[in-house]
Parts: sequence; structure tokens; C-alpha cells
Amino acid sequence: MKLKELDTRERNRFKEQLTKRYNEFKLEKIQLDMTRGKPCPEQLDLSLEMLDCVSSSDYKTADGTDCRNYGGLDGIPEARALFSQYMGVKQDEVIIGGNASLTMMHDTLMRAMLHGVSEDGLPWGKWPQVKFLCPSPGYDRHFSICEYLNIKMLPVAMTDEGPDMDQVEKLAAEDEQIKGIWCVPMYSNPTGTVYSDEVIDRLAGMPAKAADFRIFYDNAYAVHHLSDAHAKMKNILSACKKAGNPERVFLFGSTSKISFSGSGIAIMAGSRKNMDFVKKQMFYQSIGPDKLNQLRHVKFFKDMAGIENHMKKHAAIIKPKFDAVQEILEKELAGKDIAQWSKPGGGYFVSINTLAGCAKKVVKMASDAGVKLTAAGATFPYQADPFDRNIRIAPTFPPLEDIGPAMELVSICIQLACIESL
Amino acid sequence: MKLKELDTRERNRFKEQLTKRYNEFKLEKIQLDMTRGKPCPEQLDLSLEMLDCVSSSDYKTADGTDCRNYGGLDGIPEARALFSQYMGVKQDEVIIGGNASLTMMHDTLMRAMLHGVSEDGLPWGKWPQVKFLCPSPGYDRHFSICEYLNIKMLPVAMTDEGPDMDQVEKLAAEDEQIKGIWCVPMYSNPTGTVYSDEVIDRLAGMPAKAADFRIFYDNAYAVHHLSDAHAKMKNILSACKKAGNPERVFLFGSTSKISFSGSGIAIMAGSRKNMDFVKKQMFYQSIGPDKLNQLRHVKFFKDMAGIENHMKKHAAIIKPKFDAVQEILEKELAGKDIAQWSKPGGGYFVSINTLAGCAKKVVKMASDAGVKLTAAGATFPYQADPFDRNIRIAPTFPPLEDIGPAMELVSICIQLACIESL
Repeated sequence: MKLKELDTRERNRFKEQLTKRYNEFKLEKIQLDMTRGKPCPEQLDLSLEMLDCVSSSDYKTADGTDCRNYGGLDGIPEARALFSQYMGVKQDEVIIGGNASLTMMHDTLMRAMLHGVSEDGLPWGKWPQVKFLCPSPGYDRHFSICEYLNIKMLPVAMTDEGPDMDQVEKLAAEDEQIKGIWCVPMYSNPTGTVYSDEVIDRLAGMPAKAADFRIFYDNAYAVHHLSDAHAKMKNILSACKKAGNPERVFLFGSTSKISFSGSGIAIMAGSRKNMDFVKKQMFYQSIGPDKLNQLRHVKFFKDMAGIENHMKKHAAIIKPKFDAVQEILEKELAGKDIAQWSKPGGGYFVSINTLAGCAKKVVKMASDAGVKLTAAGATFPYQADPFDRNIRIAPTFPPLEDIGPAMELVSICIQLACIESL
Repeated sequence: MKLKELDTRERNRFKEQLTKRYNEFKLEKIQLDMTRGKPCPEQLDLSLEMLDCVSSSDYKTADGTDCRNYGGLDGIPEARALFSQYMGVKQDEVIIGGNASLTMMHDTLMRAMLHGVSEDGLPWGKWPQVKFLCPSPGYDRHFSICEYLNIKMLPVAMTDEGPDMDQVEKLAAEDEQIKGIWCVPMYSNPTGTVYSDEVIDRLAGMPAKAADFRIFYDNAYAVHHLSDAHAKMKNILSACKKAGNPERVFLFGSTSKISFSGSGIAIMAGSRKNMDFVKKQMFYQSIGPDKLNQLRHVKFFKDMAGIENHMKKHAAIIKPKFDAVQEILEKELAGKDIAQWSKPGGGYFVSINTLAGCAKKVVKMASDAGVKLTAAGATFPYQADPFDRNIRIAPTFPPLEDIGPAMELVSICIQLACIESL
């Protein structure tokens, strides 16, 4: 029954029941952290053998390169071969980096501010106010980089197919200082959205006032499906080339949620011209990445089938956790007309929209009872959710048996906050 | 005998002999690369067991942190404990990074340009022309970063005790746009100079017009001694604190020439205030370094005694190569009054000064006969050696048996070029 249709007495009685349940939770003194999209130890265990793949007797590439020594700015050949397939690009369109795609994205933006993104372009920092389109809710770490570099963020609504392209096209066409857009195209953080072919084609082909407009395409969850019947996504680099904008997109990816979150490898990809420009600048920063760790990855995964097979094992561990989230939300909130939530086919998050003005209250109440959630607002530019309604749930790290109680608590908090706001 | 004292006939005869020897070398078609300071495979073998130190059954820190997962922006506690000792600083004055100190130096300068070096300072990029003092000859990669970031380089002469401090003090005191100085204080690249206590005290205490003046102190060869009777160096951070300039110095170091050049770990150090400011900025770039690789290093080296003992094994491999360089230079060039060369007690290079106007010619001739040397001029800002006389020899990588012939060839080239220039 819809909560707003309850009369005052019913509402008060229901609130009493919820408060009782909430206080019972408080007494249990649970301690649970659901703030970040972190793999659980069982997921990390899946890649344990990788630690034995490089040893005191095995540290060379197929072409005989000694991975222990200096060199190889864009990664070892076998890593470039495997992860160009992973990214859906050619081998000379990929750079294999260190342990974090966040670093590659941050560094790319830093370089853009100081040197622009092409030989003939102006450093972005020379413009009075660089701006970025930020489909929201989105990934807080993307928004943090913009804030750090004083790039003004323009929020764009998310639809079920990706960013609202009418908005994106209108803004990109009219303002030369809008230099880019953040995208998490597959199982978007936090909404789980998979960009539709139409959205990808429009991103690739739309007119942009800034000739040096760039899509920062963070394909963090490219193979992170929860089931075999998973979404397929159009190749954006091909779409950009076809549309006559081959330099428009920088792609990013990593194995942080495939192998080890702290010791994975990061990938950057894009047109040959873009990659050549990036490598020319990377020369000043590095003599080369950790080649031994790249070798570990290639020896362990071998090929794309190896990666895909490995991801099924991840899904077997985390799908029950996602299922538990759905089950409790359905049981507690369905039909009450106070919240919608995503049912993602992959990725690391479930996104809940409560009634406006309730998210901060919910996160505070859950925290007071021992369950830490991502700070309300964090999924929006400047930590400012215009409706104070979005809550990000990260169910992968806690043990399965804790997910049910945690989500029950969150659901109670949502109902309490919403009842009070009615 | 001094070559300039030969009469024309003697000189021509000597030149004929040298030309004959040079042509014989050419026929031998040797192929040798002495361009970079790279460890040889036998040196890398010294750390091979490190690859077995972390395995599928051993990947946690002493405090139980799972090194496979996210987190720990400034490194694992045991790495910070060991490498704070290595750097001669306190544990909260150190940040352990990824595989390259070059990256930490580059990133520190990038951040300085965009955000300054302290909460209250102006971004350096806001100044019309940022300038850096560059003791020369010096490390080409330092100079490259300045060129990349459009930082004007002011060469400063090197003495036997470090940079010419009269020059440094004069320049630093008079120009607010001089924001820093590059230093390689121990076994300087390429001259092998060890900074004297007086130089370190003057660097620490001199008045600088720029309140945000910073010493970029690249202590790349801190423990890279060639013999047991090695140089000791004053602690610059202590000296800066004592002089009332605790924030003046950023220290850098790495294990690139201790463990593996491509897969070592990098260290940055400085006052607590400096490190806090740096970490605040690093937050936007990284969730944390590769902790597994840091764990490998600590498990392998254990303590400072372990590192020092390990460096003796390095010395046993490379000292004969340095000795061979000295032996041939002495035999071929001594007393001829056409060249001086360094006799380093450690580090990775031997620096030769020929007669003015000869270095480019020597490097070209050696290359034509199969021995590649560092490009002449590379050791100076803008690749411009004002006297065209400095040649950098990197003897560690080639096999010992090749050093003699290579240096004989180089010596022949030096004599030929100098005779022609007389």
C-alpha cells in the first residue's frame, strides 16, 4: 500500500513499528561498511594463483624482454595484445599502465589542463572556465578530479539508456568551454545503466562547439556481468571513427575488479593519434610501467576467454549478494511509492532513489545503527544531490549473511525518513 | 706527453696511428649500448628471490591488511618504516609510491604548476616565467620535465663539492620566480660528486626570494657505493629544519637500482606539513599504490642492514666495470692534457670533459663504430653543453669484457677529435 495513502493513525502506528525495529537493530550493534565498491576476499582469492605466475625462474616476455629492467613505456606486447581485445581496439591504440585507471584519468586531465589534448590545441587551463558534462548520479572520484582542477561540472540527467542526450547535445553544441563528458557506459556507477547504441552513436557524432571535446569513457565494468545473458554494448571508438570524430574518445579500463584491486593493471585506449600524443607526454613522467605485474596478468588470464571465464566465478560470488539486496528492497519497499531502485545486470552498485529530501537522513540513521553507506550526495557534482534522494549501495564486500540484515535496516531507515517527510 | 706540444709531423703521425686503430674497430662491428644507467642482468639476478616473497599463501602486512585490495595512499606501514630509515626521515615524513621516483618528481612539479606547494602559496603556473636552478652537468630526465612544463632552466656550475653555492645563493636571493633547484646529492649524475656538508647547510639555510622555493633532492644513489670506505652525507631535512626552513626540501629515492629497475618502489619524503599537502593532492590521483610489490620489498630486504648488504653484492658486479673504465682512460689519455674524467666512489656514471667543441664529434664517431653513448649535450639544460665537451659513460649494463674495448674506442675518438681541434 502507498504510504501517502495511510491516514494519520495508520501512519503513526506504522511509524511506531518501524521505530521499534530500528531500535532493535541499534541494540544488535552491527558494524558494516558498504561505502565503496570493493571486492570481497573470496573474489580476490580467485586470482591468487596469479601471484605464482611470475617467479625467480620466469620473468621474460615471449620476445625475450627482461621485465625486471627499464623500458617499454606503453606496456609489454602480450599485455597490449590481450587488453586491446578487452577494450575493443587495435593493438597500437592501447597503453597499459600501472595499478589504477583513476591515475590514468587524473593524469590525462592534468595534462589536458597544462598542454591540451592535441598538438594544435590550446591548453585547457588557458580558458577562463573549463567545463565538463557530468551525467548524474555518477562516480564520485570523477567529480573529485574536476573539483580539484577547478573544472566546472554541469550535471546531466541519467536515463535508462545513458545520459540524457538532448541535454548533452544542446550543451556541447553551444559552449566552447565545455571540453568533455564523464561516462561509465557499462553498468554505470551507481545506476547500473548500460548505454544504448543510440546514445553511443549520438555521443560519437554530435556536433561539439569545442573542437577538442573529449569523452572520458571509463569502461570500468566491461566484463563485470552478473549473469550469462548479459548486455552487449556498441564499440564507441568505431562509432567515433565512423562519425568522423576519431579523436573524440579516451577509453579507460582496469583489472582492479578482475584480479586485485590494489595490484591490477590499468588500460588507456583511443585513436592512434591520441595515443601517440599521450605517449609523447608520458615520456616525461615514466620510463615504463611495472612490466612484471603485466606479465603476471597475461600468464594468469591467457586470453579473453580466460578473463570471461574468470568473471563468471566473480558473478557466482557476488550475484547472491545482489539478489539479497533486491529481495529485501522488494519485500520492504515494493508498492509503497516511496523509492525506486536499480536492478543492475552487472557492475558494483545498486542505486536507490527515495522521496526527495530523505537521502541524507537515511544515510545518517543507517550509520547511527552501524551500517555505513556512501555519503548522500557523493554521487553528484559538488556532493550536491539536487533532490537529496540518491543512495548508493555497494553490496560486494560484506559477507552474504550480512547483506540481508543491512538492507533491512536501510529499508527501515528509508521508510522512517519518508514517512516523516510525507 | 701533452698533445698540443707535438709538432705538426708528430701530430700527423699520431693521428694516422689513431685513425688506423679506429678503422680496425669499425671492422670488428661491435654493438654496444652505453647510453643509459641500466643495471645488468647479473645485478637484477641479485633480487630474484624477491619474486617468490609474495605468493598465493602470503600477501598480508604484519597488521593483517590484505595487500590485494584497495587502500593505503602512502604505502604499507612496514615499507614506510624501512624506507623512512633509508631516507633518514621519520615515518610520517615519507610516502611510498609506485615503480618510479621519476613519476613522483614529475607529478610533484605538475601539481606545483597547477596548485603550488602549500595551502597558502600561489600555483607556480600563475607566474609569468617559473625558473629552476640546474646544476650542470646533471640528469637529463630532470631537465626534460622542466622543458615539458615550460620552466626556464638556469644552469649552475658543478664543483667538486656540489653546485657552485655562490651562484646558487646569488640567483635564489634575487629572483622570486626561481622556484627550485634540482639536486642529485650523492654520486651526482653524471659527475659522481658527493655534496659536502657546507653545500648542504648553505642549500638549507640560504635566503630565497621565493617563499615557496623548493629543493628537488633526488637521492637516487643513496646506498650505491662502489667500496666499503664510502662517503657519508649530511641529512638535508634536518639541516632545513635547523635553519628554520623545514618545508624547503622534497626528497626522492627509489629501489630501481637496488631491486628491479622496472618493478622497484619509489619514495618521496619531506616535512610532515609538505607530505600532508602532497597526500591531499594525491587523493585525486590514486586510491593507493601497489601494496603487494611494497610487501615483496620489505620481505626481501627486511631492514637497512639487508639493503646495505645487498648493495655490496651490486658493487662486486659493477666495480670491476668502473675499474676497467678508469684503467683504459688512464692508459690512453693520462698526461695528454685533452680530457679530465671523474673517479666516482659510487653511482652509475663516469663523466668525461674533453677539449671544448669535441663531445658531439666523439659521440658521433663512437656511434659510427658501434658504441652508443648518451647524446652529447644531454647532461645540460636544453641539451646545450656550452662548451660541447661533456660525455657521460654508463658502464653498468654491458658485460665486463666489453668495457675495455668500448673505452679504448671512446679514448681513440676523444684523441682524434681533440687533435683535430688543436
